[in-house]
Amino acid sequence: MSRSIRLAVIPGDGIGQEVVAQGLKVLTAVLPQDVKLETKEYDLGARRWHATGETLPDAELEALKQHDAILLGAIGDPSVPSGVLERGLLLKLRFAFDHFVNLRPSKLFPNTSTPLAGRPDIDFIVVREGTEGPYTGNGGSLRTGTPAEVATEVSLNTAYGVERVVRDAYERANARPRKKLTLVHKNNVLVYAGHMWKNIFDKVGQEYPEVTTDYLHVDAATIFFVTQPERFDVIVTDNLFGDILTDLAAAVTGGIGLAASGNINPTGDFPSMFEPVHGSAPDIAGTGKADPTATILSVALLLRHLGYEPQAARIEEAVATDLEARDGSARSTDEIGDALAARVAG
Amino acid sequence: MSRSIRLAVIPGDGIGQEVVAQGLKVLTAVLPQDVKLETKEYDLGARRWHATGETLPDAELEALKQHDAILLGAIGDPSVPSGVLERGLLLKLRFAFDHFVNLRPSKLFPNTSTPLAGRPDIDFIVVREGTEGPYTGNGGSLRTGTPAEVATEVSLNTAYGVERVVRDAYERANARPRKKLTLVHKNNVLVYAGHMWKNIFDKVGQEYPEVTTDYLHVDAATIFFVTQPERFDVIVTDNLFGDILTDLAAAVTGGIGLAASGNINPTGDFPSMFEPVHGSAPDIAGTGKADPTATILSVALLLRHLGYEPQAARIEEAVATDLEARDGSARSTDEIGDALAARVAG
Ligand SMILES: CC(C)[C@H](C(=O)O)[C@@H](O)C(=O)O
Ligand SMILES: CC(C)[C@H](C(=O)O)[C@@H](O)C(=O)O
Repeated sequence: MSRSIRLAVIPGDGIGQEVVAQGLKVLTAVLPQDVKLETKEYDLGARRWHATGETLPDAELEALKQHDAILLGAIGDPSVPSGVLERGLLLKLRFAFDHFVNLRPSKLFPNTSTPLAGRPDIDFIVVREGTEGPYTGNGGSLRTGTPAEVATEVSLNTAYGVERVVRDAYERANARPRKKLTLVHKNNVLVYAGHMWKNIFDKVGQEYPEVTTDYLHVDAATIFFVTQPERFDVIVTDNLFGDILTDLAAAVTGGIGLAASGNINPTGDFPSMFEPVHGSAPDIAGTGKADPTATILSVALLLRHLGYEPQAARIEEAVATDLEARDGSARSTDEIGDALAARVAG
Repeated sequence: MSRSIRLAVIPGDGIGQEVVAQGLKVLTAVLPQDVKLETKEYDLGARRWHATGETLPDAELEALKQHDAILLGAIGDPSVPSGVLERGLLLKLRFAFDHFVNLRPSKLFPNTSTPLAGRPDIDFIVVREGTEGPYTGNGGSLRTGTPAEVATEVSLNTAYGVERVVRDAYERANARPRKKLTLVHKNNVLVYAGHMWKNIFDKVGQEYPEVTTDYLHVDAATIFFVTQPERFDVIVTDNLFGDILTDLAAAVTGGIGLAASGNINPTGDFPSMFEPVHGSAPDIAGTGKADPTATILSVALLLRHLGYEPQAARIEEAVATDLEARDGSARSTDEIGDALAARVAG
C-alpha cells in the first residue's frame, strides 16, 4: 500500500462536476493523515469538444497513464452528437487502459426504496467484460442515408479476452461466502460467441471446484432480476449484456443514484478508472439535486483497488448508516457529501 | 374475413404440447359456428431431431406455407445442444416467412400480481424487429476451442428492414389513444446501426405528425420498465433489444405466463406465427402446472390478425375476467383452459 495517491480527476459533463466534488471531499476525509493525495483535474468532455474539437488527445492519454487511478464523473451531453464523447473519450479510456473488468456491485442498502415489493436482501456483483464484444467499434455503414443503406455492428470476442474476465469472476466468487457464479449470455442465438463463452466458463470452472455455477440467457436473466434478485451472487457477462443488466440492477436496488462502478485493469499496467453508473443527467445539472452517493461508493471501490480496504469499508458503512438515518427530507448534493464526509472522518 | 382457417400447429417441446391444446380448445370455443377450422399438426422439435436429425426439412417448410397462420407452443430442450432448434427451427421459420414484426403486448391485467409495488396501469406494445440485427446468424469462430479462438457475431441492419418495421410501429401508435412511440437502441455505442435506426425513425415520423416520439438507450429503458412502465405506449426496437425488453416487460406485468406474441408478416405473403413468449419449461412439463394463458392470448392475436376482431377481444376480456375472479387456489393447465373456453363460449 503506497502512502501517496496520484489521482486523475475527470469531472466531465452535466452533474459530473458536482458529484466528483463530493467524491473528493469524502476521499480526503477518509484518508489517513500520512497519505499524500495528489489530484490533477483533466478538462475533457462536451465543453472541451465544443472549444477545440478534441475528445481525448494523445498527450492527455499519456499524462493519464502516470496516475494511480482515475475518478470520472459523467460523460455525454445532448449538444454533442450521440457517440462522439462516448466512443472518443469514455470507451477510448476503457480500451486504451485495458479495463477488462468492469465491476458493478448491486446491493440493497438499508431503508432504500426498491420498486420491488417486499424483496429480501439483494447483494450481487456483475463482472462485465470491458474491452470486447459489440463495444469494439467494429462495423460500418454502406450507402449511408439512402434507402439502400446497410449498417453492421460486429461483436468481437477472443478466448484471451473472455478467459481473463471469467477467471477474475471465479476469483471474486470464490472469495465470497456463497461462492456462486452465473454466466449470462445468449448462446442459443449468438452461437459463435455464446458457445465460446460457455466453453471457457466451464473449462476455467474446473479450477474452482468450490464455486457453484449457473448459466442464464440474458432475456431470462432480466426476469430473475425482477422476480428473484437474491438468487445472484456473482454474474459474469459480455460488455453489452453487462451494460443492460447493470442499469436494471440499479433500478431494482433502489436507484441509479447509488450504483458504483470500477473499470479495472487487474494487471496494474494501466490506471483503473472509477465512475458512477449514472450518466451526466443534463436536466438536473447545476440544481444541486444530483445524488453523489454513487460517486462516493465508486471512491470506495477505488480505495479497495489501491489497497485501502479499511477506508473503503468505512465509506460503505457510512453510506449504509446515512441511508438508514434518512428522514425523507430532500438533501442537496453538497449536504449528502458533507454528511458522508463527517461520518467517515468521525 | 375468410370463413375458414387453415391452421398449422407446432406444439414443439416441453410444455408446448399442453399449452397449445388449451389454445386450440379456446379457439374452437370462440369461433362462430360457420367458420371452418382445419388444423394440421407438425411434429417438429427435440423429439423429431433426436429421431431423424431434422429440424425443419424443406418439404415441411413448403407445407407450412399453405396455411393461414401457425400456432406454436415452445421450442427447446436441454437434451439438444443450445442453438440447434432455436436457429434451425424457430428462427428459420421467422426468417423464411419474413416475420419482420414481432409483436409483443404488455398489459397489467386486473388482479395480477406485479412484483412492482403500487404501480398504476401498464399497457404498452413492443414492436420488435424480427428478421435482422444480431439474429441473422452472421459471424463465425476461428481456431475454435483453442486459446487463440476468435468469435464474431455480426448484426446486419438494412434501411429496407428498419423502415418497414418502424412504419408498422408508427401505424400502431397512430391507432392508439396516446399516440406515443419510443425508439429503443444504443446509438451512443452501436453508432452505425444506431444512427441508421434513429435517422429512419425521424424521417418516417414526419408522416405521422400526431405521434409523439421519444428515444431511449436500451440500458436506460430497462430502468424505466421498472420505475415508470406506464410511460410507454408503443416501443419499436431491434431484434436483440426486443428479446431482452419483452422478457423484462413480462416480468413487470405479472409474469411470463401471460405474455403473448405474434411473429407477423404484414404483407400476407407468408403465414404469420403466434406463440407464447415463454419457453418450453422442461422442469414443469407434464405436471399440469403450465399456465396456458399466454398461448390463449396468442390465439387472440392470431384471430385479430386474420380479421376476427370481436373474437380476439372476447378472449382478452375472458382472460381479464378470469384473472379478476381468481381466488388464489392453484389451477391446472387444463382447468384454466376449460374456464377460458367456457367464458368465451358463454
Ligand atoms: C455512456 C455509455 C457509453 C456507457 C456504456 O454503454 O458502457 C454507459 O451506459 C455505462 O454503462 O457506463
Ligand atoms: C428461443 C429464442 C431463440 C427466442 C428469441 O431469442 O427470440 C425467445 O427468447 C423469444 O423471445 O422468442
